[in-house]
Amino acid sequence: MRWIRYTLNGETGYGMLDDNDRVTAVRGDPFGGYDTTATRLDLADVKLEVPVVPPTFYCVGLNYVKHIGTEGLAIPKKPDVGYRANNALIAHGEDVIMPADANRVHYEGELVVVIGKKAKHVDIGEAAQCILGYTIGNDVSERNWQASDRTFWRSKNTDTFKPMGPWIAAGIDLPAMETAVSVNGRETTRFRTGEMLFGIEEFISAMSRYITLYPGDILWMGTDGSSPDLRHGDRVDVTLTGLGTLSNRFVKAGEPRG
Amino acid sequence: MRWIRYTLNGETGYGMLDDNDRVTAVRGDPFGGYDTTATRLDLADVKLEVPVVPPTFYCVGLNYVKHIGTEGLAIPKKPDVGYRANNALIAHGEDVIMPADANRVHYEGELVVVIGKKAKHVDIGEAAQCILGYTIGNDVSERNWQASDRTFWRSKNTDTFKPMGPWIAAGIDLPAMETAVSVNGRETTRFRTGEMLFGIEEFISAMSRYITLYPGDILWMGTDGSSPDLRHGDRVDVTLTGLGTLSNRFVKAGEPRG
Repeated sequence: MRWIRYTLNGETGYGMLDDNDRVTAVRGDPFGGYDTTATRLDLADVKLEVPVVPPTFYCVGLNYVKHIGTEGLAIPKKPDVGYRANNALIAHGEDVIMPADANRVHYEGELVVVIGKKAKHVDIGEAAQCILGYTIGNDVSERNWQASDRTFWRSKNTDTFKPMGPWIAAGIDLPAMETAVSVNGRETTRFRTGEMLFGIEEFISAMSRYITLYPGDILWMGTDGSSPDLRHGDRVDVTLTGLGTLSNRFVKAGEPRG
Repeated sequence: MRWIRYTLNGETGYGMLDDNDRVTAVRGDPFGGYDTTATRLDLADVKLEVPVVPPTFYCVGLNYVKHIGTEGLAIPKKPDVGYRANNALIAHGEDVIMPADANRVHYEGELVVVIGKKAKHVDIGEAAQCILGYTIGNDVSERNWQASDRTFWRSKNTDTFKPMGPWIAAGIDLPAMETAVSVNGRETTRFRTGEMLFGIEEFISAMSRYITLYPGDILWMGTDGSSPDLRHGDRVDVTLTGLGTLSNRFVKAGEPRG
């Protein structure tokens, strides 16, 4: 079972998606509680939205050894989480707008954990119980700004720089999972999703010693490999085994959309 | 006129506070729109809540020269904003809980800007128009974790480390404003609130070149001076001229509350 957040006739809500891409509309949401309705829809007939707008947007940042080396950074010694910002979120199928002065824009394909239950002081063995499901994120980054600015506000949180979706899947097979990224249909990155420095449960448990995780919070798990410099018109597909594909076009501000 | 967010009989909402501390309850909120009701209350009879839970929580970090020197940091060359996290917010009057392993907890008294209107690509001269009002923040920080961790997740965003309130005031006289912080009634810090490296309008305009500011977003403007190491039972009052006082007790986890 998968959860989607969608808009139809100007109204936005949640629906459950079956294996035949049929949607059962619900009242409420998977975080605060819901009732199913009699409304059935085709996935193709609704506009997909970002699957959740989180109370807090966590992002691991550095969690795969190859990517850390590519960026010339030190390997973290413990699971210190970072943040991203809600202004930058866009849905599957929406365009990433690269500002006119953004000259080195890269993708970062990531597994996203969606929290379903309030969690504080959870052991590693209990951490999975507070997860609602998983989705896909593209942690779009402008490398020149990442090097020049004191924080990631512009390099990683410019409007449209955080595509997420298309849906929330209840479960994953992490040991069998691969993350593949393609640009205009040509694969440019592939890595084993589970080869993380610090695992999902380890992060949740460590974070929950100091902070309360709330339903709807999201945790982006970091990326491996590297990206070419993206150009106007490029389409980037991030595919995670069994989870689906997050697809977005990259366009330069002020250029014709084509 | 001041806005408060409060709870009474299990319901949380917004109210307008007059000079005699009388509350006019409203339906809705100052961000999305509201209607006044016939309900009048005394401020003393309601439980104050954090005046807004922001979509995105911005924090300037380094914006006063003396504080930057105290922390041994370089002076920023441009207005690069950072982030804080909603899990850590607590209201005026609530306790800051210092975890058992938090040994160097400091206050940071800050002016907080509350965004009232959606803003993108605003000039410095237009920036004030997107501000709803102002409140007070205490950017509580554990300096050992700030030095040891790769990010601020624990040093600045541990649960209860972000007191904010008590209300949102519509206007301030920034040139005349002073920020004063006292511990157990004894003043320990005082600085001119307006002596910022980069001003409020400058930050809003610079940020809005790349990001959209939304109603309810908050921008903490940084602090000056330094703090003693806070101890179990200390009461910290942050007073900004004309804006009021944000007061919170600091207690050590596991110690008797007294």
